[in-house]
Amino acid sequence: MPSGEDRLIAKYFKPLATAPGALGLTDDAAFYAPPEGYDLVLTADALVSGVHFFPDDPPETVARKAMRVNLSDLAAKGAQPAGCLLTLALPAGIGEDWLCPFASGLQSDCDLFDCPLYGGDTVRTDGPLVASITAFGMLPRGTMVKRTGAQPGDVVIVTGTIGDGALGLAVLRDPDLIARWSLSEEEAAHLVGRYRVPQPRTAIAGLVRTLASAAMDVSDGLVGDLAKLCEVSGISARIDAARIPLSAAAAKALAAQSDRIEAIATGGDDYEIVASVPSAKWPAFRDQARAAAVPVTAIGEIVEGRESPQVVDAHGKALVFAQGAFSHF
Amino acid sequence: MPSGEDRLIAKYFKPLATAPGALGLTDDAAFYAPPEGYDLVLTADALVSGVHFFPDDPPETVARKAMRVNLSDLAAKGAQPAGCLLTLALPAGIGEDWLCPFASGLQSDCDLFDCPLYGGDTVRTDGPLVASITAFGMLPRGTMVKRTGAQPGDVVIVTGTIGDGALGLAVLRDPDLIARWSLSEEEAAHLVGRYRVPQPRTAIAGLVRTLASAAMDVSDGLVGDLAKLCEVSGISARIDAARIPLSAAAAKALAAQSDRIEAIATGGDDYEIVASVPSAKWPAFRDQARAAAVPVTAIGEIVEGRESPQVVDAHGKALVFAQGAFSHF
Repeated sequence: MPSGEDRLIAKYFKPLATAPGALGLTDDAAFYAPPEGYDLVLTADALVSGVHFFPDDPPETVARKAMRVNLSDLAAKGAQPAGCLLTLALPAGIGEDWLCPFASGLQSDCDLFDCPLYGGDTVRTDGPLVASITAFGMLPRGTMVKRTGAQPGDVVIVTGTIGDGALGLAVLRDPDLIARWSLSEEEAAHLVGRYRVPQPRTAIAGLVRTLASAAMDVSDGLVGDLAKLCEVSGISARIDAARIPLSAAAAKALAAQSDRIEAIATGGDDYEIVASVPSAKWPAFRDQARAAAVPVTAIGEIVEGRESPQVVDAHGKALVFAQGAFSHF
Repeated sequence: MPSGEDRLIAKYFKPLATAPGALGLTDDAAFYAPPEGYDLVLTADALVSGVHFFPDDPPETVARKAMRVNLSDLAAKGAQPAGCLLTLALPAGIGEDWLCPFASGLQSDCDLFDCPLYGGDTVRTDGPLVASITAFGMLPRGTMVKRTGAQPGDVVIVTGTIGDGALGLAVLRDPDLIARWSLSEEEAAHLVGRYRVPQPRTAIAGLVRTLASAAMDVSDGLVGDLAKLCEVSGISARIDAARIPLSAAAAKALAAQSDRIEAIATGGDDYEIVASVPSAKWPAFRDQARAAAVPVTAIGEIVEGRESPQVVDAHGKALVFAQGAFSHF
């Protein structure tokens, strides 16, 4: 007689456990045979309802965000996804109508990123829902890209566009911004979609691994995250605000309210990659990223010094932000 | 300028990240170089305050329980611990006075079981504290012990003593039981200690791997967990209630209240190993386990059939329990 938890796992999560070593989630643990000559890359990120997503966000997008914030870390380190484990703390009110689309969203990303489920745990909580994923990836031994390694003269690059996630969150909190920023329905949906379902840059993980000198994913804001990279690399950086790549929607928000540059540069929830690339390797990086359909933009350069990175405007004037990186603590 | 989260990690958890690949928890992810010819074994278990432990339990024991429930799974599969990741969802009221002993308890077990911290996440919650650990272990390729594989005639064995955790929980809920069961202070502390800090049987993981035909850890109750093993192995089992190994404290509880056999056999929180061992291998298993200072007891045998395992009393009469295995769902 299977328990309620076993039934829940069999019904919703077993279909995601496509790897032989996952044993259909019917055992206490799973096994994984790492390919010889490869390192595992390990990361864990949790989302809390009401903190990292809205309680009424579609369950599909909650699942996909939980997965993708982890895949984003793997990609920024140069690793290809290999598998994941999911721990869900579920309030009593969560039933089939939530779990079914959640599992379906997770499955679509497990499939899309070739990152099957290897296990996890489901527990009851009388607090908000917590979805915690541990993901592991693989790369040739000794090749994980770190935050350390940036050198003066390296080009600072970012993937995709910056600020959409933070502006999407702002729009969800205050829908009047759609009119104030003169956004079309599609543009508003773009920002919200970027907040709810980030785009991990798995497609260029191999490029990051072979061509970047240092890299990390932008989760807590471009300026703050770049500052962390600079600090451990023992260098500084100079970024041109005007070169920070913006979506059409973000550009409209900035045109309407110029002080939104702060939300864009420091707001977080981007899940893009910021990396330093030796200038000799930048053309190859740019061309191969474009061939992989991943937009990459040079936004500045690594410079000598130990001070926080500077973001300068079109007149060379340094912008000062009240907040560096986002932190809940 | 490090964020609050970065400071918290650096202060409390960096000392646990002793593996070179953990990079002192200063990067987005860690790397781990698996030894050639080995498989990884992966497991995740979460504890929720008020569900799996008491909010006023000592933080050291919360940390150690969170770690040990995972190590117990690894041991039952025959794996040696290799590393772990910790996700903590922290309510606002949790401060230094809780985190400091929590980290210290975790560190002592990371050291004791040679299972360093490779990463994790700390997030805010307005609900109860959730401590979620993903642990990984190693074993020679293709040798993970599964729930499947038990054969009729195999000896059913358990490690340690059964029922202490469930009785410890009962004592915490109703301290009057200490007098009713005529427990000494030490005996009461033994039961509570077994609830709070289980003993993963890592010391005989190698024996389980080489000599057991099937195994799992007893987390949700001996009878229910053995039923799960039997079901997937396609066999049944016959257990002698009188042979279930009891601590002196549990024996006293049972002598005072004979119906406590149900809590003992089905209550859970044992984190011992139940395994099937071919009868020809049982003497070697028993002798080598004793040499490793791990008590093991034969409690019955695997038999043909598809029905749930029977627990029979001294007169051969089958005991009937209201509840099989513990489940929150």
